[in-house]
Amino acid sequence: MNKEDIIEQIRKKKSFLCIGLDSDLSKIPSFLLTYDDPIYEFNKRIIDATQDLCVAYKPNIAFYETMGSKGWDILKKTLNYIPKNILTIADAKRADIGNTAKKYAETFFSTYNFDALTIAPYMGEDSIRPFLKYSNKWSIILGLTSNMGSKSFQSLVLKNGTQLYHEVIERSSKWGNTENTMFVIGATKAQEFKYIRKIIPDHFLLIPGIGAQGGDLDEVIKNGINRDVGLLINSSRGIIYAGNDKKFAIKAREEAVKIQKKMSKYL
Amino acid sequence: MNKEDIIEQIRKKKSFLCIGLDSDLSKIPSFLLTYDDPIYEFNKRIIDATQDLCVAYKPNIAFYETMGSKGWDILKKTLNYIPKNILTIADAKRADIGNTAKKYAETFFSTYNFDALTIAPYMGEDSIRPFLKYSNKWSIILGLTSNMGSKSFQSLVLKNGTQLYHEVIERSSKWGNTENTMFVIGATKAQEFKYIRKIIPDHFLLIPGIGAQGGDLDEVIKNGINRDVGLLINSSRGIIYAGNDKKFAIKAREEAVKIQKKMSKYL
Repeated sequence: MNKEDIIEQIRKKKSFLCIGLDSDLSKIPSFLLTYDDPIYEFNKRIIDATQDLCVAYKPNIAFYETMGSKGWDILKKTLNYIPKNILTIADAKRADIGNTAKKYAETFFSTYNFDALTIAPYMGEDSIRPFLKYSNKWSIILGLTSNMGSKSFQSLVLKNGTQLYHEVIERSSKWGNTENTMFVIGATKAQEFKYIRKIIPDHFLLIPGIGAQGGDLDEVIKNGINRDVGLLINSSRGIIYAGNDKKFAIKAREEAVKIQKKMSKYL
Repeated sequence: MNKEDIIEQIRKKKSFLCIGLDSDLSKIPSFLLTYDDPIYEFNKRIIDATQDLCVAYKPNIAFYETMGSKGWDILKKTLNYIPKNILTIADAKRADIGNTAKKYAETFFSTYNFDALTIAPYMGEDSIRPFLKYSNKWSIILGLTSNMGSKSFQSLVLKNGTQLYHEVIERSSKWGNTENTMFVIGATKAQEFKYIRKIIPDHFLLIPGIGAQGGDLDEVIKNGINRDVGLLINSSRGIIYAGNDKKFAIKAREEAVKIQKKMSKYL
């Protein structure tokens, strides 16, 4: 899926919502547990209820991995169920030395045919380049994350006066381009968006951290939006666990509608 | 597996060799391709041929993931085949925000029951702490990696004059202790070991990068060894792909013996 396809979907749906499929057996409504494949059933109903309101789905790979090989089959079935015009993001935060990164790229871009993958930058240039070789695929590099731990290293000040995450964004934005690279910037860091937009005015940003993590949607949009919109704002728990009974999909839709309505004002 | 168990194995085998199972269908001897499960057959024979010479096996998770759910079943079978007194390391370089890191910890320490997992530090403290909650399990945090890309960010100089990777090691060594935390330090950085040993004199180090990547074994040992030995030195391709015909396991053993003999001089 290329940049124009994404922008077209955003304009059409008046939404730049990404829904995180952090689907967890211990959190889904209990009536689903009688189904053969409760997680797939849950995902299907969430997708049915929200696909006209979002432009991306982001399965959080940890939640599938933890079920063993069965989890990967559920992931595959879920991916096949997602309409083709919706961006699929594997939130897996992979990266390794070149020959191994190549295998991770194969896994997510070929074996599972995701459109995009989140990538951890610590191992540097040759750990990221293998992902950038795929056309119409997206590497979404961690810039400034939404968690408390972002203070441990990402905001350390370098000798040249910039923070580490600035350097990560600036350097890695040059390895690829605005057609194959996005950055993760946490919604909890709204005050940083103006500075980030000076470094990467044209890149798409994937923004976790609204809802459960406390980021403010309007603040993020005002400070982060660019001429292509340039934002994919994720909500996971706030949408998928909005309800916990037979009406959970309706509740999920209601939450997605609330966010989509706010977004539509900016489009 | 606790620290004393590891040290006991090292003393007994006169070896601190870790063998990386980067098992790849396109690289294993072609005669194995007629077996039902070629990768498992390959791993079994490598384990049979080397288990008295090494103290750890390190499956590189990317190579299994890329095969889809089948790959995870092969991984499970391989793990079951590894003798219980040998440390098993999932080289997966995971980490994410707290609730997700918890799932990754479950995956590797419970679903798959690995003894240890490699962890990427970029997301900071709360992305690592969930792994440290398991007793007799090891978090192996990336410090200074063996690849060229380690120069991109790990060796950036901070305002306080230290390099980023020093800060990563120093801070994260305090979140756990020498009984649950190790660090990855590439063998290609032998000159850095003396400095690293000032920060973490007592931690075990997992050292990739000898062989195919060019690190010098003696240099690494001389500069890195401590009173507990404190080193697990990995070789993957140099051992498992030493031969490419019916005698591949014998060739693998020969390579492992060469390394073990060098190691025995220091024990």
